[in-house]
Amino acid sequence: MTSARLRQYLRGPFPDDLVAAVIVVILLVPQSMAYALLAGLPPSAGVLASLAPVVVYAMLGSSSSLAVGPVAVLAMMTAQAIAPVAGSHGVSAELAAVVLATEVAALLTVAVLLRLEVLAALLSAPVLHGFIAGAAIVIALGQVPALLGLPIRGNTLVELAQAAWSATSLTPHAITAAVGLLALGTLWLLRRHAARLLRALGLGARTAALLGRAAPILVIVAAIAWVVFSPGLAGGVPLAGSVSLAAAWPPPLPWSAPATVWIALLPAAALIALVGYVESLAVAESLGLRRGEKVSPRRELAGLAGANLAAGVSGGFPVTGGFARSIVNFDAGARTRMAGVLTAFGLLLAIAVAGHWLERLPKAVLAATIIIAVLSLVEAHPFRQAWRWSRAEWALMVMVAGLTIVLGVEPALAVGVLASVALLLKRKARPHWAEVGRVPGSDSFRNVRRFGEVETLPGVLTLRIDESLVFVNSRWLAETVVAQVRAREGVHDVVLMMSGVNDIDLSGLEALEQLSDSLHTLGARLHLSEVKGPLRDRFEAFGLGWLNGRTFTTQLEAHLALTSRPADTEKAGS
Amino acid sequence: MTSARLRQYLRGPFPDDLVAAVIVVILLVPQSMAYALLAGLPPSAGVLASLAPVVVYAMLGSSSSLAVGPVAVLAMMTAQAIAPVAGSHGVSAELAAVVLATEVAALLTVAVLLRLEVLAALLSAPVLHGFIAGAAIVIALGQVPALLGLPIRGNTLVELAQAAWSATSLTPHAITAAVGLLALGTLWLLRRHAARLLRALGLGARTAALLGRAAPILVIVAAIAWVVFSPGLAGGVPLAGSVSLAAAWPPPLPWSAPATVWIALLPAAALIALVGYVESLAVAESLGLRRGEKVSPRRELAGLAGANLAAGVSGGFPVTGGFARSIVNFDAGARTRMAGVLTAFGLLLAIAVAGHWLERLPKAVLAATIIIAVLSLVEAHPFRQAWRWSRAEWALMVMVAGLTIVLGVEPALAVGVLASVALLLKRKARPHWAEVGRVPGSDSFRNVRRFGEVETLPGVLTLRIDESLVFVNSRWLAETVVAQVRAREGVHDVVLMMSGVNDIDLSGLEALEQLSDSLHTLGARLHLSEVKGPLRDRFEAFGLGWLNGRTFTTQLEAHLALTSRPADTEKAGS
Repeated sequence: MTSARLRQYLRGPFPDDLVAAVIVVILLVPQSMAYALLAGLPPSAGVLASLAPVVVYAMLGSSSSLAVGPVAVLAMMTAQAIAPVAGSHGVSAELAAVVLATEVAALLTVAVLLRLEVLAALLSAPVLHGFIAGAAIVIALGQVPALLGLPIRGNTLVELAQAAWSATSLTPHAITAAVGLLALGTLWLLRRHAARLLRALGLGARTAALLGRAAPILVIVAAIAWVVFSPGLAGGVPLAGSVSLAAAWPPPLPWSAPATVWIALLPAAALIALVGYVESLAVAESLGLRRGEKVSPRRELAGLAGANLAAGVSGGFPVTGGFARSIVNFDAGARTRMAGVLTAFGLLLAIAVAGHWLERLPKAVLAATIIIAVLSLVEAHPFRQAWRWSRAEWALMVMVAGLTIVLGVEPALAVGVLASVALLLKRKARPHWAEVGRVPGSDSFRNVRRFGEVETLPGVLTLRIDESLVFVNSRWLAETVVAQVRAREGVHDVVLMMSGVNDIDLSGLEALEQLSDSLHTLGARLHLSEVKGPLRDRFEAFGLGWLNGRTFTTQLEAHLALTSRPADTEKAGS
Repeated sequence: MTSARLRQYLRGPFPDDLVAAVIVVILLVPQSMAYALLAGLPPSAGVLASLAPVVVYAMLGSSSSLAVGPVAVLAMMTAQAIAPVAGSHGVSAELAAVVLATEVAALLTVAVLLRLEVLAALLSAPVLHGFIAGAAIVIALGQVPALLGLPIRGNTLVELAQAAWSATSLTPHAITAAVGLLALGTLWLLRRHAARLLRALGLGARTAALLGRAAPILVIVAAIAWVVFSPGLAGGVPLAGSVSLAAAWPPPLPWSAPATVWIALLPAAALIALVGYVESLAVAESLGLRRGEKVSPRRELAGLAGANLAAGVSGGFPVTGGFARSIVNFDAGARTRMAGVLTAFGLLLAIAVAGHWLERLPKAVLAATIIIAVLSLVEAHPFRQAWRWSRAEWALMVMVAGLTIVLGVEPALAVGVLASVALLLKRKARPHWAEVGRVPGSDSFRNVRRFGEVETLPGVLTLRIDESLVFVNSRWLAETVVAQVRAREGVHDVVLMMSGVNDIDLSGLEALEQLSDSLHTLGARLHLSEVKGPLRDRFEAFGLGWLNGRTFTTQLEAHLALTSRPADTEKAGS
């Protein structure tokens, strides 16, 4: 930034960005620590993942309000990925985490170069909603042992059950459980009532909402004060541990890991890149729309790639644009990506000043903040909507949620994507079709069964095909039309009305050729009407010699042409 | 069959069926032996695979002219499947083959029960053509060593190259090569000219064509005679070996194989079931159409399942309805499935009478018959047609053919199916759309760019979407429409003309909701027109409260309604 632009910035958006940064820092400090613990890493890793990535995103990204950093779902995916690899390959969790972040960066870079952002389209709405709900539930379940002081760890229901089965004792640590449950209850009350309370105290609605979001800091401060002032009582309570960046520095560098670790983490990295990109883009687009700002999908990919590389070389773990922190940033009035840079400085300052106190925060309180944060991700609305729109997609949503909870992210997303594609192919395989007739006196042709009063021609069968003709339905086409012709007496002309046919692949073309041959054998001609522009161009280039009838631009033309030729004129197949 | 029906049959179709059976037997004897060798089994296995399966198909199947038995492509797939498993699990090739046939039967039965015949739709035209061409080429290549008397075996180009690399000598066995090449040349000449020659001798066209197909028997007879009468010269020439059914009986029973063999063969069995079913159904349907006979896909599945079970318990290997033998059966005038049963009796008789001579047939001659038979499967037409219709599908076809030749059937079909689905999704992900306007004075609305003289309304943007709205294009929809609205000044109404939208899944529904919200923010309303019947029903059941504009049955209604409201009336987003 030149000094002129800097002066301009300081006089313009800077004050707004600064206020936003302070609020985000208050939210970010405990969240960074909590998500690091969720990922199976020391709290300092969460702080590191909130520093360099934010600055790099500010340089490369395109959204003015997206806040990049650790998020709950990615933290859980990180935990599921690194726990088995670190164990079986004898490397530290910190090293596995930086390898994972670097791989995510590499895959996102490949996606930028090969224009693979389109792969994000594979995560259908049922898969995404089911996955988010399932992830939130399993994250919350996974925090229950920490909340109650139980020595159980696990990232899926199966792992938690196994840990519980083999645990020597399932008695909660009484004081830890008391602190955890108290924090959970207070945080829940603050989330529900803090903003209203502040408004009742005379604050404006926007200020009240903002300060309400920062209210959890009260619980954090109270918990730390309790640990500091009651060392006796708090003796056996597990504490967060070091957030000292000096102790965590220098972090392990990703290239110090053996190749086997890189290979073992690659599938998880691909899923993290996909989920992170989809989540981040959805947040950036919804905030961009509110502000009339155009978000570039490719620059978002580049921004995330840079942020994850920064996380990889600075001791962090995979990051993305999170909804919770972005919305706070946005509501707090952040106007440029500099707000993110200010947030990073603020975080550094907060750790330097308050770091040795933050270490004494009970893990149970962090577990409570995670539970409160993720349960807002479980929404009934998408499930209700799916139930009303499509039972099959609702079942898919529930299945993905269940698999995420029971078995983990990888099987859930793999099965979800495959099932989405299978559902799509299944619907395409049995298309809707209708026999149509002319609405008397008009240009319109409508379904004979829906509109009784339509006019059909004797010996002419007009079928509207409501689907592209592609390999999954090409055999269906020939079978259906031939069966319809056989079911009627004396059909000598078949018109396929192609207004709903958007695409024809080679299998569809061969099916049409075969259908023309079959109808010829049955003594009928095959005509096409209302072929769409792009397909008409392709048919013209390919030639229509295989068709034993004609093509008509509109169905009306076909209707008139076949009306004027009485039924007893020459038959094609004779 | 009751005695009355039997009498009726004997006086009616029996003579026709008998003639067909004799001709098919002449063709079948060497072919059964050759395909057994191709599958890596003794010739007797090919004979066994042509007996019981034929009888069982006659009882269960639905086609009157389909001839079931060993076919070239399935024989090669069998060889690729059983060779590695027999080696690594220490079982005989014969045992592995009957296990494979039984598994094919089991999978086809499951397919009947679960109505999985629809899975056949996954083999798109490019994959099928590429696979058939590649299989024919690699089968022919694999016969070259036997034709020339080289001690090399392999079912893929990689295996053949490895065998050639590690072979001690690559010098052909001179006499074997001479016999093989002579047989190849004669068979080729007979195939091209026999029918014409017979017609020139005064035979009718149909009889000439039929006897022409049986002409290869001359080469077989001549080769056996040569071996019998020149024992000195024929000493080192590899011969076919035992076709004695007495020696091959009792065959190994599939359930005597360990479970590991069953598991190892399962993926290959699934592919064989799929390919066998698709091939058989295509043959049955094309012959059925010529005779006006309706083929039932489910009864075909059941017939094939029964035939393969019969092959499994009687020492055969996987079978299906083959094109070559079925067309001979059909042309020879077979009128009922009893022709198949007669064929089986004829084959049994032929082996009993001529078995000890058939054993002395040189393998090189069988290799020549295989090469001649499969090279007719390599057709340029599908490749030319694909090149003209779609370069992407042509590339897929070539890739599948290449993979089949180089690596084998399993990778080729797996990659082919995945690539077909990917191509389909890719085309769906970026649909065609057009801004449309009214053709003056008519009910038609056409692409503004294709038809210059159309009428649009100020402030109203009408877009025709030519694709179903599903998860692969749901983000595209919102992005495209919002970009179009932003690119124009003062758009206050957007109409989506849905005549090309055949299907909307949950992702598409959410995209429409989001689009309505986005347009609301931009001060515009979203309307839908020409929604198809089935979707209209679903929208009515679901409710349209989320849409900030209206729905219109026809685009004309929308046009008239938005004409009568001038641009300066209330804006939705203000």
